[in-house]
Amino acid sequence: MLVSALLTSLGINSGLCVLFFLLYSIISKQPSNYEVYVPRLLAKGNSRRRSHFNLERLIPSTGWIKRAWKRSEEDILSSSGLDALVFMRIISFSLRVFSFAGIIGVFVLLPVNCMGTQLHEIDFTDLSNNSLDLFTISNVNIGSKWLWIHFSAVYIVTIFICYQLYNEYKYISSERIAYFYSSKPQPHQFTILVRGIPVSVCSSVSESVETFFTEFHPTTYLSHMVVHRTSKLRNLINEAKTLSKRLLHLQSEPSQHTYRHIGLFGQRVDLVDHYGKKLVDIEQSVRLEQSNVSLAEETRAAFVSFKSRYGAAIAFHLPQSTNPTQWVTEQAPEPDDVYWPFFSSSFMRTWISKLVVIVACILLTILFLIPVVVVQGLTNLSQLETWLPFLKSILTITFFGQVITGYLPNLILQLFLKIVPPIMEFLSSIQGYISHSDIEKSACKKVLWFTIWNIFFATVFSGSVLSKVSIFLEPKNIPAKLAVAVPAQFINVYMPKYETAGKFWPIVHNSMIFSLVLMHAIAIGIFTLKKLSIASTLLFPLPVLTLLFNAYCRKRFLPIFIAYPAEVLIKKDKEEASVPAMAEFYDKLVTAYRDPALMPIQYSVNSESLNRPLMSSADF
Amino acid sequence: MLVSALLTSLGINSGLCVLFFLLYSIISKQPSNYEVYVPRLLAKGNSRRRSHFNLERLIPSTGWIKRAWKRSEEDILSSSGLDALVFMRIISFSLRVFSFAGIIGVFVLLPVNCMGTQLHEIDFTDLSNNSLDLFTISNVNIGSKWLWIHFSAVYIVTIFICYQLYNEYKYISSERIAYFYSSKPQPHQFTILVRGIPVSVCSSVSESVETFFTEFHPTTYLSHMVVHRTSKLRNLINEAKTLSKRLLHLQSEPSQHTYRHIGLFGQRVDLVDHYGKKLVDIEQSVRLEQSNVSLAEETRAAFVSFKSRYGAAIAFHLPQSTNPTQWVTEQAPEPDDVYWPFFSSSFMRTWISKLVVIVACILLTILFLIPVVVVQGLTNLSQLETWLPFLKSILTITFFGQVITGYLPNLILQLFLKIVPPIMEFLSSIQGYISHSDIEKSACKKVLWFTIWNIFFATVFSGSVLSKVSIFLEPKNIPAKLAVAVPAQFINVYMPKYETAGKFWPIVHNSMIFSLVLMHAIAIGIFTLKKLSIASTLLFPLPVLTLLFNAYCRKRFLPIFIAYPAEVLIKKDKEEASVPAMAEFYDKLVTAYRDPALMPIQYSVNSESLNRPLMSSADF
Repeated sequence: MLVSALLTSLGINSGLCVLFFLLYSIISKQPSNYEVYVPRLLAKGNSRRRSHFNLERLIPSTGWIKRAWKRSEEDILSSSGLDALVFMRIISFSLRVFSFAGIIGVFVLLPVNCMGTQLHEIDFTDLSNNSLDLFTISNVNIGSKWLWIHFSAVYIVTIFICYQLYNEYKYISSERIAYFYSSKPQPHQFTILVRGIPVSVCSSVSESVETFFTEFHPTTYLSHMVVHRTSKLRNLINEAKTLSKRLLHLQSEPSQHTYRHIGLFGQRVDLVDHYGKKLVDIEQSVRLEQSNVSLAEETRAAFVSFKSRYGAAIAFHLPQSTNPTQWVTEQAPEPDDVYWPFFSSSFMRTWISKLVVIVACILLTILFLIPVVVVQGLTNLSQLETWLPFLKSILTITFFGQVITGYLPNLILQLFLKIVPPIMEFLSSIQGYISHSDIEKSACKKVLWFTIWNIFFATVFSGSVLSKVSIFLEPKNIPAKLAVAVPAQFINVYMPKYETAGKFWPIVHNSMIFSLVLMHAIAIGIFTLKKLSIASTLLFPLPVLTLLFNAYCRKRFLPIFIAYPAEVLIKKDKEEASVPAMAEFYDKLVTAYRDPALMPIQYSVNSESLNRPLMSSADF
Repeated sequence: MLVSALLTSLGINSGLCVLFFLLYSIISKQPSNYEVYVPRLLAKGNSRRRSHFNLERLIPSTGWIKRAWKRSEEDILSSSGLDALVFMRIISFSLRVFSFAGIIGVFVLLPVNCMGTQLHEIDFTDLSNNSLDLFTISNVNIGSKWLWIHFSAVYIVTIFICYQLYNEYKYISSERIAYFYSSKPQPHQFTILVRGIPVSVCSSVSESVETFFTEFHPTTYLSHMVVHRTSKLRNLINEAKTLSKRLLHLQSEPSQHTYRHIGLFGQRVDLVDHYGKKLVDIEQSVRLEQSNVSLAEETRAAFVSFKSRYGAAIAFHLPQSTNPTQWVTEQAPEPDDVYWPFFSSSFMRTWISKLVVIVACILLTILFLIPVVVVQGLTNLSQLETWLPFLKSILTITFFGQVITGYLPNLILQLFLKIVPPIMEFLSSIQGYISHSDIEKSACKKVLWFTIWNIFFATVFSGSVLSKVSIFLEPKNIPAKLAVAVPAQFINVYMPKYETAGKFWPIVHNSMIFSLVLMHAIAIGIFTLKKLSIASTLLFPLPVLTLLFNAYCRKRFLPIFIAYPAEVLIKKDKEEASVPAMAEFYDKLVTAYRDPALMPIQYSVNSESLNRPLMSSADF
């Protein structure tokens, strides 16, 4: 890749970035788009639609960027929860790391690389036609003393990042505890999920749960909710939902369109009537199925609620039964976060799905590069000219040639990479997780490993470290990524469905540690190639120290992200013991984990006003 | 190795085995040895010393073997605890496995191997001069259909062993629960060890513990015992013990020997008086040091006792503090099992020792074979004749030559192997374990890995699988090993110091699984060498299935070996709630975890009768 191609690519990206900023600025100012961009302010009544025309609306402004970045952490915390705050911390953490590494790279390493003559000297008269490799460590002479500058850079960057990681981990774990103290009582804090419930011949799952917990947790046990098999029911409800939507649509249309020729004799039928009747029928069978399911289709899993957080924690942490495969306990997800379809599938089906998912992930990860490399091959100029001769005249123009060699391979790879997260999320969803957040966390991990594997192999196959890694880690993408993630979205648009209280931070931490160790390995390899074996040897302690640092962090902070300690639970329980609102909360807690498929439904047109809240809760 | 050498070796081993059986039979019958062989019967008064001469005493008998094997499991359980029973089960399990594999090997595989002509045909006229390799799979022809017999044998043996393993795991874990139900209340069931106790400026460790547990475990907390630094004290006490022993020895000698010339002017001093005074001095400084230590030298660790097993389990299982490196809890070992020296060393020292131990173990394991191979080289006949020419005449005699090639290498290796366990135990003892049983378990694991590594490399270096493995796994050693382990010893001699309730079974299980997978790997390798690639391919599922089986066992049984479930603890607590003896037990519990170094001592001659029980408890 030539410098000119990089500059072209950089130019296009920066241009697109500015364009999106401007478009966002203008579009979000149009009153007709307020529902999209500031729904929360609208709902609160803080923002009125101004219908009169205003020139200001069409002029892009930058004030919103400033406002977005000025938001205090308390503000984010109160409006969007701890997850949003942690996400913001990830961005600012990444920005700090990139700035630090960028400054060292541009002002220290780049001059050192340029001074080298290993490949050949840089032609400063025609800068844009130099190969990019001349600006990398490849150009530093073998055995040169300047390599010690690179050596020091590895140490300095590692120390800086570890220091930042430690601070972030410390800050986020203390925030996690503080967030828990300040939280209102929530059903999932008082509830555990119990699986592998044994049943005797004469008792149901529900009776079995009742007997067990009243015997072994008599002072803390509150209630339970057995999970039912509801896959059939969910299909029926989805059908009803689709019908009711179609019906609403028909009713809003002019009346002449609602008559169609239907049936063998082509009689004209009022479609509203037709669908209305069908909907009533389906609702009838939903109700029938609901009563069937509640009576018969019990799974061997139940949500068990306790009178205190500490009581739930005891039942969660202690092994319950002499047979460790029975009465298996785990922390309950938030009621909205439960992934109900999981409970419908049998153990065997879950187990096979899991196996299939693992194999599919491995295959996808390993074989992904093949189609990408093939498609990227198309962007080879002379190849393109042979295949598509009519493009010849365009391709001879330098600018278009540069766009195609500099930007198109990147674009194609990015497009392919865009497909990966949805695929991984689908695979995770059939893997047997009980909550949406677990599914997403697992998908994140899959994407992460996918990326690492592909970077690694792209590196191995390409020979030059930078040429491919830059495709994934191009600093020029950072502003574009930030533009997507600026808080404006959190404050005004983002409505958290569930809250993990920053439980995903350890993934970020581990990924960073992995990247550091990978960097050390590559550095050791480069120093060996450059015949500076003392530097290779002196680098060896660095990955060891980094892993020891990680071990310490795992011991010092990770437990807080797995479960809250007794101290915190007991204090919180004591604090709330005298609050009068708790009685009301307990009433809600008893039914908090009812399967939404078992809730009464009513989509029929007659009582439309009634079913609004039900629909929106089912949509989430 | 020739068949004749194997036969010689077998003959010597069997002869030694019979000899030891006879010696044991005769020696154990002599009334003067009753203290050694039947101390427990003597103590119970079940056996009287017969002083009159009896011819029967000098004739070896076999009845004791029969009696030993006839002991019922209940008998062993009640007399020696669950550990002894599990140990017996290990032996009978091994015997079953060896018999099964032996029968298949001798009656199915051996004939198949003999029929092969890969190396060359077996010379049945001079059987003892055939190489042993002719009887192994090496002799089966490449690509032969007879190899499918070996293939089936691998599957059959694996299935048989997995079935046996499952049954044993199931039996031992149910025994573990039953043993717990039937056990008397014991201090370690009610106690946890807490480490990383934070102290503020104005409070001691003891006050800190009291405050924390009365606040967060008010209903279950009973008492605590802070651990003190007592290394100096222990040295003093050891000195006092040595002196008092010397004194006792002197007093039993004729009085003329107790005078010696001592000091600058050579005055005659009564040694009994001299040592007596010295002992009183040391005892004085011990008392002084004891009061010093109890006041000042608190470590940040304490044994915390609870009113119920369930209470202790809750404190053990739940993370306690917002800082996970503080208030770290673990299960307490039995009071006699505590390894007190550990608590004296600082965190840094423990950490460095740990590192040193790991490095030492790895070096020992890797480099061990070098001296062994060198010394074994000496047993090469022509080498020996060159080095020690005077042996030439003896070595030319066939029998001695066979003894040396067949038996000496084995003996040297065995002698070297005998040194390894004590070394490993020493290394484990400085690694920072808090209990003797943990030290021994860790030493076992070290020895196991050592053995596996050495078998593996001996195999790799020797080329032939059987020639070296046989050194370690010679079936002829089994009777000898059994002779050491027959129950006679458990019933009459063995006095358990502490009881882990079979906690070491998972090590046996895991080792077995490891060996199976290793066997599969070797089998796959052999079938590949023998150019029967379908068999190699069809063997691949076997290690996978074995590991899946192991995963299931870990899930189904392992938790029982780590901690008792809530169900069991609560039932046991309830059962005992009304027992009047519990008040007395609680009194004992309060002081159960007092450091023996802090107990009052009295070795001086005047009150010898008083200190007996103290001495024996200190000896354990």
